[in-house]
Amino acid sequence: MASQGKKLINDPNAVVTEFIEGLVETYPGLQYLDGFPEIKVVLRADYASTMLDKVAVISGGGSGHEPAHAGFVGEGMLSAAICGEVFTSPQVDAILSAIRAVTGPMGCLLIVTNYTGDRLNFGLAAEQAKSEGYKVETVIVGDDCALPPQRGIVGRRGLAGTFLVNKIAGAAAATGLSLDEVAAEAKRASEMVGTMGVALSVCTLPGQVTSDRLGPGKMELGLGIHGEPGAAVADLQPVEVVVSHVLHEILSPDRNYVPITPGNRVVLLVNGLGATPAMELMIVAGKAVPQLQLEHGLAVDRVYTGSFMTSLDMAGFSISIMKADEAILQRLDASTKAPYWPVGVDGNRPPAKIPVPLPLSHSGKSDESLSRPQQLSEQGHLLEVAIEAAVNAIIDLRDNLNDWDGRVGDGDCGSTMYRGATAILEDMKKHYPLNDAAETVGEIGSSIRRVMGGTSGIIYTIFCKAACAKLKANTQSVVTSKQWAEALETSIAAVSKYGGASAGFRTLLDALIPASAVLQERLNAGDDPCIAFLLSSEAAVAGAESTRHMEAQAGRSAYISPDILATVPDPGAMAAAAWYRAAALAIKNKYQVHE
Amino acid sequence: MASQGKKLINDPNAVVTEFIEGLVETYPGLQYLDGFPEIKVVLRADYASTMLDKVAVISGGGSGHEPAHAGFVGEGMLSAAICGEVFTSPQVDAILSAIRAVTGPMGCLLIVTNYTGDRLNFGLAAEQAKSEGYKVETVIVGDDCALPPQRGIVGRRGLAGTFLVNKIAGAAAATGLSLDEVAAEAKRASEMVGTMGVALSVCTLPGQVTSDRLGPGKMELGLGIHGEPGAAVADLQPVEVVVSHVLHEILSPDRNYVPITPGNRVVLLVNGLGATPAMELMIVAGKAVPQLQLEHGLAVDRVYTGSFMTSLDMAGFSISIMKADEAILQRLDASTKAPYWPVGVDGNRPPAKIPVPLPLSHSGKSDESLSRPQQLSEQGHLLEVAIEAAVNAIIDLRDNLNDWDGRVGDGDCGSTMYRGATAILEDMKKHYPLNDAAETVGEIGSSIRRVMGGTSGIIYTIFCKAACAKLKANTQSVVTSKQWAEALETSIAAVSKYGGASAGFRTLLDALIPASAVLQERLNAGDDPCIAFLLSSEAAVAGAESTRHMEAQAGRSAYISPDILATVPDPGAMAAAAWYRAAALAIKNKYQVHE
Repeated sequence: MASQGKKLINDPNAVVTEFIEGLVETYPGLQYLDGFPEIKVVLRADYASTMLDKVAVISGGGSGHEPAHAGFVGEGMLSAAICGEVFTSPQVDAILSAIRAVTGPMGCLLIVTNYTGDRLNFGLAAEQAKSEGYKVETVIVGDDCALPPQRGIVGRRGLAGTFLVNKIAGAAAATGLSLDEVAAEAKRASEMVGTMGVALSVCTLPGQVTSDRLGPGKMELGLGIHGEPGAAVADLQPVEVVVSHVLHEILSPDRNYVPITPGNRVVLLVNGLGATPAMELMIVAGKAVPQLQLEHGLAVDRVYTGSFMTSLDMAGFSISIMKADEAILQRLDASTKAPYWPVGVDGNRPPAKIPVPLPLSHSGKSDESLSRPQQLSEQGHLLEVAIEAAVNAIIDLRDNLNDWDGRVGDGDCGSTMYRGATAILEDMKKHYPLNDAAETVGEIGSSIRRVMGGTSGIIYTIFCKAACAKLKANTQSVVTSKQWAEALETSIAAVSKYGGASAGFRTLLDALIPASAVLQERLNAGDDPCIAFLLSSEAAVAGAESTRHMEAQAGRSAYISPDILATVPDPGAMAAAAWYRAAALAIKNKYQVHE
Repeated sequence: MASQGKKLINDPNAVVTEFIEGLVETYPGLQYLDGFPEIKVVLRADYASTMLDKVAVISGGGSGHEPAHAGFVGEGMLSAAICGEVFTSPQVDAILSAIRAVTGPMGCLLIVTNYTGDRLNFGLAAEQAKSEGYKVETVIVGDDCALPPQRGIVGRRGLAGTFLVNKIAGAAAATGLSLDEVAAEAKRASEMVGTMGVALSVCTLPGQVTSDRLGPGKMELGLGIHGEPGAAVADLQPVEVVVSHVLHEILSPDRNYVPITPGNRVVLLVNGLGATPAMELMIVAGKAVPQLQLEHGLAVDRVYTGSFMTSLDMAGFSISIMKADEAILQRLDASTKAPYWPVGVDGNRPPAKIPVPLPLSHSGKSDESLSRPQQLSEQGHLLEVAIEAAVNAIIDLRDNLNDWDGRVGDGDCGSTMYRGATAILEDMKKHYPLNDAAETVGEIGSSIRRVMGGTSGIIYTIFCKAACAKLKANTQSVVTSKQWAEALETSIAAVSKYGGASAGFRTLLDALIPASAVLQERLNAGDDPCIAFLLSSEAAVAGAESTRHMEAQAGRSAYISPDILATVPDPGAMAAAAWYRAAALAIKNKYQVHE
């Protein structure tokens, strides 16, 4: 249990004040009352501007449930949040300070989660504030659906559904409604929502050792948010089974926790308990929505997925379902500056998925249009000769490449390159459009990608596709030697960028970079292209040989001692030099025959 | 460890597609390409409207880093995100599909994290797309500061700093800049940011067993985000020490990872690794800001605290520091619809803390103004008589109350009530303003709160404060009997609401509720107030006696068998009946003496 009890804290007794300090550093719209350690109140930095004509909405409770409650302070949601110590209700004086700080003539609404401590402390603060002349209303939220319904509100704990109530109240207050109206909306909302949680682990209190109550392969259903045992322990099951169970509990017509019946509209809130990754919460949401629609006959108007009310580092989630109507949706959709209220949840739902698009250039051109021309142009003929020579050089070099690679790597360089070479030979006969140099180079890339695995396969595919794209930019059908040289340069740049290697890294680039440099140099000097290509290919061979004296920067060779490395050249560089040299010689011979 | 290996999933091989399904259920602004399981691409639902005149910004990578990357798709940030399998680079075809889906004539920018697989797959897709006629640029981000700097970009992994680059590029694209301009901004940003991570636990791959590599009390510094070992293992230390170490590594002038020097402005990003609660991340942020300011001489312009790029359920965090200037801040502050980009981070920073406000009613009135009047009014005199009688009844009943409570509770009811009673007697002599009934009742509450602990203390304080607030609403100085009755009703309602009990719950309300009902009834019937009070007090006594036959709903008595409960009345109810009855008798005697 590597992570048990580990926390990123300084002093277990200071976690709440240090949390608040970090929170206000992050969010300039938040401030706190200068009353640490007793008074831990986060409030809107702009509260003074709203006190005169808006009802204040205040909530709070024990800490350890972050981002609850302080993360939901902001225009359109809470005016202030009072933070208790971890899992401990805030003190009356702290609550009173919050009321005094943000409450103007319109009064304030306290939204209180249904725990005895919270009820009593908020209740006393409310009555004290009233006796000081403030207008105060309170709404107690108990959305828990895990325990059997009892008389009144006792037994239904306040869980993540509270944040839907907070949002509705905050939005109502922001419109300038009176205290009675805001309280009525909050009360109505609190009666529309039910919540049930599932925990995969227990939480670790700061400075304490974690309980091992929950065994491997077990989960707790109907948990509270303070590490108290859940209503039942069960074997861990696939998430859609767990979600189904939770939804049936919340929506049980027998227990009648919430007034939701088939045909209703609802909003869904999936709440992480602290240590549940976003991936898992989204999976829960993705399972809950179709179940609500198909099994329960409900329209799901909004989905909120995230961490709202956590239990420190507990793994698990809770699901809240609220009955929705236009009035409620309007409040939930209203904009807010509360940092942790989710954005982008409202709006029309387009189809979730759209078709995978077809390639742009192939959209009007089927694969059959790629075929070997009946009649080769001069360039097409030359290209064929060069390709043939290049791949045959690789085929001939297979055993040498494997041998070199066996001493510094995994010994398959020759076999891998051989696969690519034979595929090129095969595909060229079938469908390379040889009179179109750009497309042909692109097709070489496709052949390589089809059969060559590993890094070298993708590197060579990038090499060919980059050249293809560069050659395509030409408007003339015949490619000049200068354009070939530019294509080579572009391909080398792409391989270097995406492969992460540069000159001297003991890779194929140590053959190709000098080759490219000489090619450009000789062409610029006015050499015959054929001679320039030949000279360039000599540079490739020399460059490949020079890799014997280079240290490996990446890959398996990086673990081989320099002594051994010095006995062999880099097989990738040798292969590149071989095909490049063979192509150059073939072109030269072709021209000599012609001459 | 209880939670090891536990995940809320169905099929380890389907976690990514199920994540995407949940994500688009949650956010109607997102869609995905219908190419599961190979093609896992999330894109803006409104992409079609922006393709013509905006550069598309595309990123992606292996999954397991949620909300990265799909959670950052939205107007002003990413146009599309490609999700690979967990910790596996996405396939070229998937990346190509994303490019084809969102790229219009302005072209697209691929932002690629610096891992070999990502570089090669995105690189090949980029070259393939170019060969199809798309305008494509790529920027590779390697912000890792854990490994010694090496030649080029090799070795610097792409970590959470990537999301600052994504944001800057997305905001630049949203303004309609050209591809070259957007790419230039992204490249510049990528050179300004450094990141280092700290892990407290290793992560659990879906369907796999967790490594126990990291022992108790240990942490890894300079971790990667794929569960690979960190650069160093160290003893867990207080978070401010850990933060200090990380900041010094990132900002090391010797290593020169980032071009940040004292006097610069920076932005800070604190990233959770998946299982780190918001509380701990905020504590990290709260420690990092002053250290950056005081130890490194940097102005911290923005703080982003949250989970951006996680490692499944790893516990820990990473810190990213980016050099900031007006241009970068403008891009970071620009609005976006990307669901996981933090809101409320920009704007002016007001003072973090403000003074705790003074009570409204005491602001012009010091404690000394509360004092026993020299001359008591008739009402003041009656009040004194009633209070004296009530508290003396409690004092007399102490042992009985303790005895009853000893049989059904913890045996301290009498002692607790006695403490309150004697405090009231004492304080009344000193400073109760007896001629002001409302304030006097409020002061009784204050006396009780000062000395009585436990639930009964707070319940009685609420009782008194609620009455005080109600009485204060009167404008006349003399309180009518009807007003007293209303105050009692209000107090009972407050105790019921905040205490969570109703009639029949075997509490003090079972004495007070019948008393209140009779009082109202008799007064409405026109009875003499004195008689009405007396009759009401008889109802209180009868109500208290009737608790013998009630089941306990809460507290310790709930665990006591009904047989035992039937032998004793509820001590709280008996106490309430006793003081109420004594007060009524005292008032009656007083009036009889007067008559």
